[in-house]
Amino acid sequence: MSLIVQKYGGTSVGTVDRIKAVAKKVAAGHRAGDKIVVAVSAMSGETNRLIGLASEIQEQPNLREMDVLVSTGEQVTIALLCMALQDAGVEARSYTGGQVRILTDNAHGKARIQEIDGHRIHDDLDAGRVVVVAGFQGADEAGNITTLGRGGSDTTAVALAAALNADECQIYTDVDGVYTTDPRVVAEARRLDKITFEEMLEMASQGSKILQIRSVEFAGKYNVPLRVMSSFEEGPGTLISLEDDDQMEKPVVSGIAFNRDEAKLTIRGIPDQPGVAYKVLGAVSAANIEIDVIVQNVAKDNSATITFTVHRNDLKRASDLLEQIASDLGAIEVDTDDRIVKVSIVGVGMRSHAGVAATMFESLAAEGINIQLITTSEIKITVVIEERYLELAVRALHSAFGLEQSEA
Amino acid sequence: MSLIVQKYGGTSVGTVDRIKAVAKKVAAGHRAGDKIVVAVSAMSGETNRLIGLASEIQEQPNLREMDVLVSTGEQVTIALLCMALQDAGVEARSYTGGQVRILTDNAHGKARIQEIDGHRIHDDLDAGRVVVVAGFQGADEAGNITTLGRGGSDTTAVALAAALNADECQIYTDVDGVYTTDPRVVAEARRLDKITFEEMLEMASQGSKILQIRSVEFAGKYNVPLRVMSSFEEGPGTLISLEDDDQMEKPVVSGIAFNRDEAKLTIRGIPDQPGVAYKVLGAVSAANIEIDVIVQNVAKDNSATITFTVHRNDLKRASDLLEQIASDLGAIEVDTDDRIVKVSIVGVGMRSHAGVAATMFESLAAEGINIQLITTSEIKITVVIEERYLELAVRALHSAFGLEQSEA
Repeated sequence: MSLIVQKYGGTSVGTVDRIKAVAKKVAAGHRAGDKIVVAVSAMSGETNRLIGLASEIQEQPNLREMDVLVSTGEQVTIALLCMALQDAGVEARSYTGGQVRILTDNAHGKARIQEIDGHRIHDDLDAGRVVVVAGFQGADEAGNITTLGRGGSDTTAVALAAALNADECQIYTDVDGVYTTDPRVVAEARRLDKITFEEMLEMASQGSKILQIRSVEFAGKYNVPLRVMSSFEEGPGTLISLEDDDQMEKPVVSGIAFNRDEAKLTIRGIPDQPGVAYKVLGAVSAANIEIDVIVQNVAKDNSATITFTVHRNDLKRASDLLEQIASDLGAIEVDTDDRIVKVSIVGVGMRSHAGVAATMFESLAAEGINIQLITTSEIKITVVIEERYLELAVRALHSAFGLEQSEA
Repeated sequence: MSLIVQKYGGTSVGTVDRIKAVAKKVAAGHRAGDKIVVAVSAMSGETNRLIGLASEIQEQPNLREMDVLVSTGEQVTIALLCMALQDAGVEARSYTGGQVRILTDNAHGKARIQEIDGHRIHDDLDAGRVVVVAGFQGADEAGNITTLGRGGSDTTAVALAAALNADECQIYTDVDGVYTTDPRVVAEARRLDKITFEEMLEMASQGSKILQIRSVEFAGKYNVPLRVMSSFEEGPGTLISLEDDDQMEKPVVSGIAFNRDEAKLTIRGIPDQPGVAYKVLGAVSAANIEIDVIVQNVAKDNSATITFTVHRNDLKRASDLLEQIASDLGAIEVDTDDRIVKVSIVGVGMRSHAGVAATMFESLAAEGINIQLITTSEIKITVVIEERYLELAVRALHSAFGLEQSEA
């Protein structure tokens, strides 16, 4: 008998029929003898409907009241799912975040979970009930309703799994697992049976949108085995867990991630002086523009060149700011380019394998793809290339690292 | 400075624009220096939408989960109203029934309020805030969400007023007060400035649907002055309070109520024996059919005749049952009639005035209206007459008791 926390997102509970289908899935697990706790999102479209009502009333809706408002979305789902479970012959009980004591700080709209009192849930599970908890929400110490921010239901599920010491946290979504890369780009992309928290984090931060980064971090921190599965199809999904030391033959590269949402800015010919990077990048950050890849070089004449990427939506603001900075610092010129993409290879195997970068650069060169920027971390190598080469690059790398083959 | 509890129903908060209008009303009171607590219903249509979702899932939706579901309706309203108040420059804070500790028993769907902890509300009021509370809901001792049943927001408002020791509880609705009778029947019907709890109860039980009976009982019990006012028009409304001993000249009759929803059943020629009324009416009650007027007579031959009225929807069931009882008891016949109406005159002045019944019967006789049944209570006389005479009877009585004149 295992204790499983399952999470179903808005699409999975988007209609009455889908809620019934979820109830069937949960009921099957319950009948098989597992103790099941379910975290759910609002029915798809509901949160936006509520936000729409609020914005008709207040231009900048009050954050405390916004949480009171949008938290009703999940509350509707928990009640309906419990009814569907009861209709399927399974005893079930619903709880809002506040009722089950998901204690958060009081940062309305982006609260962080501080503690969960698993007492009441354990009592229900012991009595043979399925427990259904509203995702995305909690309450602060004074009992005010808080929300964890959009997509926070994943975090609720992981936090519940950690607090209840669950055997597994299953995230049901509209894909059947984590793939070596996007199957729309590489037809041979393969579902991974396993991936480590670190790899998943790198994949997620590179644009693989299956899981909220925060929930993966949380799962890693508390070592909660996380499984991504499909709400609509049968299958084992992908297990995200700690690195498995017993696994003799680790794949060097687990997956290839990419991101088309960024643009590149370069400021050239900055008279070199201490603190140049801070002067440039600090000002950009201060304007609340998130910076991703950063590369700095010093030329022969000791003038510095700094290149960095930002989200394409921020390009105009960043570029205006940079022109100002360039003139302040006496730099020569500012260049921008929004026709670039970021491609990364990710894998814990890199730690113990040499020559991974060489293989990557070689295979891109063989396709005639020029690399504009390179950054590396312990388990990831990222390059920035021209946008038009994206598909070609991903396919070449997928093949170069043998990702289409079945796992060893 | 007064402490006022205001209640706005589903129609009054049915759209974003109406919520803004309510906020304006509340803000005006707040600026005038009053401490204001607002209880609200769900936006009109919302509760039915939620019940519809539930009934798509479970034929007999689980009562606990139904309360979790429908209580979201008021939760949406409290958040939106607080946003509208803040937009109007008034600090406001919303609370669900559970948050503000409206403690109820655990009878889901028809819970009764046991206690309210006014602490938190008083703190907010003292800090200059308007407090907005979700009507119709509470929580039991274990923290489960409960609802008071439909229309229960009136009860929430009265209970809040009692717990907070408010100066007045104002019920905002789509009429501008309590009338001497239905203005659609008598054009001369007049809005009453004042009426007693007892009179209001008799009016309400006779089909005057402005207020929930339970909330009037509650207000009477705790002596909370209740004022019925229009959400859409200015005006003083009608104050419902204890009998005012100072009022020298009490009107004999305050209003005329009527009810077209009943049908009459007669069982004739029952061999008289002890317990006949119980045998007949007990069986009807046991079938969960509510009985209203009851009249019993004994004929010369000692056989008994019992006549009673039930809701028209229950007529078929009651009549089938009565046929069975008649044959068991050896009664002669069963008669039914669904073309009847009940007309009542109501007034605390009756207690000290003789001849009221005579005036009533005389004025009906003058119009050629035959009285089928008569029952009386201390402050009410009810007759059952043929349905087609309804308007004629009400107009005649309205005039006979001088209700169209301005109050003394």
